[in-house]
Amino acid sequence: MSAPEKFSGVLTPVITPFTADLTPDAERLIRQCKWMLLHNVGLAVFGTNSEANSLSTDEKIELMDRLVEGGIDPARMMPGTGCCALSDSVKLTEHAVKLGCGGTLMLPPFYYKGVSDDGLYANFSEIIQKVGDANLRIYLYHIPPISNVPLSLGLIERLIKEYPDTVVGVKDSGGVMENTLAMLKAGWDDFRVFAGAETFLLENMRNGGAGCISATANVNPAAIHNLYANWQSDDADALQAGLDTVRDIFQNFPMIPALKAAAAIYGDDADWCRVRPPLVALDEAQMAGLTQALHGIDFAMPGLKEAAE
Amino acid sequence: MSAPEKFSGVLTPVITPFTADLTPDAERLIRQCKWMLLHNVGLAVFGTNSEANSLSTDEKIELMDRLVEGGIDPARMMPGTGCCALSDSVKLTEHAVKLGCGGTLMLPPFYYKGVSDDGLYANFSEIIQKVGDANLRIYLYHIPPISNVPLSLGLIERLIKEYPDTVVGVKDSGGVMENTLAMLKAGWDDFRVFAGAETFLLENMRNGGAGCISATANVNPAAIHNLYANWQSDDADALQAGLDTVRDIFQNFPMIPALKAAAAIYGDDADWCRVRPPLVALDEAQMAGLTQALHGIDFAMPGLKEAAE
Repeated sequence: MSAPEKFSGVLTPVITPFTADLTPDAERLIRQCKWMLLHNVGLAVFGTNSEANSLSTDEKIELMDRLVEGGIDPARMMPGTGCCALSDSVKLTEHAVKLGCGGTLMLPPFYYKGVSDDGLYANFSEIIQKVGDANLRIYLYHIPPISNVPLSLGLIERLIKEYPDTVVGVKDSGGVMENTLAMLKAGWDDFRVFAGAETFLLENMRNGGAGCISATANVNPAAIHNLYANWQSDDADALQAGLDTVRDIFQNFPMIPALKAAAAIYGDDADWCRVRPPLVALDEAQMAGLTQALHGIDFAMPGLKEAAE
Repeated sequence: MSAPEKFSGVLTPVITPFTADLTPDAERLIRQCKWMLLHNVGLAVFGTNSEANSLSTDEKIELMDRLVEGGIDPARMMPGTGCCALSDSVKLTEHAVKLGCGGTLMLPPFYYKGVSDDGLYANFSEIIQKVGDANLRIYLYHIPPISNVPLSLGLIERLIKEYPDTVVGVKDSGGVMENTLAMLKAGWDDFRVFAGAETFLLENMRNGGAGCISATANVNPAAIHNLYANWQSDDADALQAGLDTVRDIFQNFPMIPALKAAAAIYGDDADWCRVRPPLVALDEAQMAGLTQALHGIDFAMPGLKEAAE
């Protein structure tokens, strides 16, 4: 197996479909992944918006296997493999590397709060050493609004210095562009900085960023990739404004249920609405509101319905 | 298997020992549990202070099995079985009930923040229905300072009304006595309210509480149980003050590493100091500070060293 190339471009935390008894639905997930790849969007499966932390380690391993068996190129996959338990993180990460995944997106352990950089460093370092595979590529996942466990610039730099071939990038979902800019200006050699939402895609690209890993790329993949591919063009600001219009609509609703609702509406497949507790599907009024708002901007998810057939 | 009796008294989230490669050490855990039971302290294994969320589901299942094989009475066990993933919560809870555990202490799923009571209700309800065992007894675990996902009085009441024989108690680790008092005064029939620390034990008992589930019962079990047994005595306030003196010392240090350090010092067993990342063991200066502070109050853990031999 050859060493993975570093990621760049647009990826999405692919939404995870469930059957009626709330079991992960591998077949629907394969179809969604294929539709993503068709629009040049990479697969950050098991991200926050994938309800990854509502899935067990065994469920994630089985889904990864099914995706690869289903014809998904593992080089395009950056599964989330950072768990609360060191043993889970090692097991999942090992499996992802063995499958040939291009990288893994790694949350810090997020139960204990106020932990030290030494403790977080030890966590990532132990994972890297226990996995012990030269093909491991880690993209750190900074998302303090949800994890409540931030990754400081000092911690990231320490990891890069110790493991320069392994710790190769970050997803910054902190929502604070100054932090992203500080990473871009830190002088870390070919370190891939992804914005956590397309909201910051253009600014990230103009400052040397690698792209974005965004929830709404689940529903608006082509347009987001289009800005990535054309960020140096004259109409880049207009393209960014177009993306923002779509994102604003989704942000008016609980994000994960709204993404799934859009997949249900535009894929004509109501089963997509299911979420695992503690999340709750959109209610009727929310569903109507989302439908109307998207209709108002002539939103479309071209080819989704066909992909589901 | 007969229906479990409801818990009362003092329980502790038993600290979890690790071997040099950070594997859970079942033998040391069995010894610690036996020392707890010797002092009338029940076993809330896999609590916050057990580093439960640094253990995988499979590791917890194996430890539970080893404890019971090692002679620990499962009726005295209230393992933590609430995980982020519904599938993990169901698997762990099912196993605990099959083993004959007296109850389970259940965190809400704690990754997603700002979730609704409907979503949390659905989580607990799904677990209860999927486990589907009349011997299941759930003690809800309210610990917003760490989980960041509070359990509202309305949610608890809804669960009690729907599942009166299953949802039978709560551990309130919010640190706000007014909330504990509100639970005690809610009129929930024989609902067992445990204080989350012995700090609130006397006040909890005076208001109809069931006892406490406390980290420091790992190191100070006899004295804490003594207050529980004698809360109506004339010297109850003095007993409470004595407990507070010990607790204050531990609260000056990172709690979990300090509890393990005490087990190491008084059990003459340095291996107890190990923690899993993201936690970090006490450094030399902290270790010296803790030793001195405990020496200053003539602290002891009688029989611990002998129990380890």
